[in-house]
Amino acid sequence: MLIQGRRQRTIWLGEDGRSVQAFDQTKFPHEVEILTLRDVGDAARAIADMQVRGAPLIGATAAYGVAIAMREDTSDAGLDAAVKRLAATRPTAVNLRWALDRMAERLRDVGQSRREEIAFREAEAIADEDVAICRAIGDAGLALIRNIMLAGREGDPVNILTHCNAGWLATIDWGTATAPIYRAQEEGIPVHVWVDETRPRNQGASLTAFELLQQGIDHTVIVDNAGGHLMQHGLVDICIVGTDRTTRTGDVCNKIGTYLKALAAHDNGVPFYVALPSTTIDWTISDGVREVPIEQRSPDEVTRMTGRTGDGRIETVAITPDGSPAANYAFDVTPARLVTGLITERGVCGANEEELAALFPDLAG
Amino acid sequence: MLIQGRRQRTIWLGEDGRSVQAFDQTKFPHEVEILTLRDVGDAARAIADMQVRGAPLIGATAAYGVAIAMREDTSDAGLDAAVKRLAATRPTAVNLRWALDRMAERLRDVGQSRREEIAFREAEAIADEDVAICRAIGDAGLALIRNIMLAGREGDPVNILTHCNAGWLATIDWGTATAPIYRAQEEGIPVHVWVDETRPRNQGASLTAFELLQQGIDHTVIVDNAGGHLMQHGLVDICIVGTDRTTRTGDVCNKIGTYLKALAAHDNGVPFYVALPSTTIDWTISDGVREVPIEQRSPDEVTRMTGRTGDGRIETVAITPDGSPAANYAFDVTPARLVTGLITERGVCGANEEELAALFPDLAG
Repeated sequence: MLIQGRRQRTIWLGEDGRSVQAFDQTKFPHEVEILTLRDVGDAARAIADMQVRGAPLIGATAAYGVAIAMREDTSDAGLDAAVKRLAATRPTAVNLRWALDRMAERLRDVGQSRREEIAFREAEAIADEDVAICRAIGDAGLALIRNIMLAGREGDPVNILTHCNAGWLATIDWGTATAPIYRAQEEGIPVHVWVDETRPRNQGASLTAFELLQQGIDHTVIVDNAGGHLMQHGLVDICIVGTDRTTRTGDVCNKIGTYLKALAAHDNGVPFYVALPSTTIDWTISDGVREVPIEQRSPDEVTRMTGRTGDGRIETVAITPDGSPAANYAFDVTPARLVTGLITERGVCGANEEELAALFPDLAG
Repeated sequence: MLIQGRRQRTIWLGEDGRSVQAFDQTKFPHEVEILTLRDVGDAARAIADMQVRGAPLIGATAAYGVAIAMREDTSDAGLDAAVKRLAATRPTAVNLRWALDRMAERLRDVGQSRREEIAFREAEAIADEDVAICRAIGDAGLALIRNIMLAGREGDPVNILTHCNAGWLATIDWGTATAPIYRAQEEGIPVHVWVDETRPRNQGASLTAFELLQQGIDHTVIVDNAGGHLMQHGLVDICIVGTDRTTRTGDVCNKIGTYLKALAAHDNGVPFYVALPSTTIDWTISDGVREVPIEQRSPDEVTRMTGRTGDGRIETVAITPDGSPAANYAFDVTPARLVTGLITERGVCGANEEELAALFPDLAG
């Protein structure tokens, strides 16, 4: 997608052919800064400090991190050390582990002299596969947007509400929830996106707004409180959100507040879709509300806000009284009954066990 | 209620007996600063600059403003000028107009020599009546909280979720949604309050958290996104919110985001109550969603946040990219079907035309 008018991925091989580059996403939306990852330490730091974020991008960064490490030390010990170091950056990130396992498995039985070349090819393949999956999600979701356009008045934009950032910045390209939007733009379908701010970490206000702005997509930032009112008044045609984990029964774990939007969509007859790569389906869980553990993060994310002052400095300000405790639940679970459908790389299906298993017989087991 | 350990109202006669004092609420929660209103200009500025806010407090401030004006000029022209000046501060504030009309009517036929004394008495009466109404709301709501306590395990706190600030800082004392909470505290019932941050103006994070902290009520600040998750997991026993306007049919117009909490309460069988003085019932409106106009405020409230830096300065920071538009709907309407009951100064009733008319036959017309 576009950043400063240039078609980019979130991670790419540097022009020197020896380093890997990525955006420092902690600087968005106020600055565009490019990181150059020259050794495995750089890659590990970029992941640990959340300069790169989003499961697919973390996975790809780890894969490239292994490749960079192979430039220095192609021995088994070097490979093991790189994998270990990268794995320790965010111990709970499933996709990170998956990408590292894949790299290690691919390289283990390869002669040392070919490891560097093959590592880069494998990292590139991981990135390319993610792009293909996101693009396929975009194609599947595009049909939904096109149908809304066809049912509406000619020239009226399709109004899409999204929560958090399931955008291309969280992936390599296209994003998940945003992929149908970018595909619609390519096809000349007029769209307008309501961007939920997404407290406490403001991924909507900072990242989704930023990437839509860069891509030239008409959008409006709203507080998380506003979506219900918009839906009551017919100002939202479809909700599309991402997910961190979807159960085999179609319950959707996503950023805190998603459930409230799904309730409002249901109450107002607005279709509520979840875009996801099948890799995020947890085939072992049936009851999302009961079984998915919800991470609690630092209360500081609630009590403090970071932004840019009038004279351009980045400042963090406290917004609650000293002494008031805060709680910070990171995710919630939207029961399948509130989800109109799941947009996957193999097409759209209902949020229920039967349809998911029919679409993914190879995975449902 | 308590501020810095002292029992206070939000507005009171100064010790000199000539001036009126109030908290500068724009300084909360980071500072406690007292305003001294010495002339009608001071009172007008306090209202216009939102140093005092909340319908009842605005009304009382305007009434005291007229009284202060009478110290300088007790003529009819002086009275008219004071009323006109105060009325212009916030033209859409219904309670402001009401208080000024009442003061003017009371003073018009009184000899000039007695106007000052009577004006102060009338302003005091307006404040006292509001306190009595809020306290009565507290008594009515107390019964609901006590019943939850009695049904629960001994010693467990009653968990109450509230949105925005319908607290004593918006009134003269007690508040509306908070009155049952403060009455419960008086009665020794253990309570814990989940305080919705309430973006974009953060009245929950700044004002409600502040007043609960000052009063020594156990509470936790959460982002507006979190309430649904809490209710799914049985962590909320009752929601109590305030309202700006309730229709004759029980639809509730309140701060943006209230509707989303009501949906979550309904979905999880959590009782959802609205506390209100009967003066905020609009007996002319039947369909809140269709008929109540929703104010749109400056997008800057969405794109900027104000707080205190680590070294104690108050700063405003931008949290969205330059160039991303924002929309700022100030209120939403919760349909009566989602409201368990209304807590009024005459007791609790269902959110429907019949029960409201039965409780207020004199007003329902």
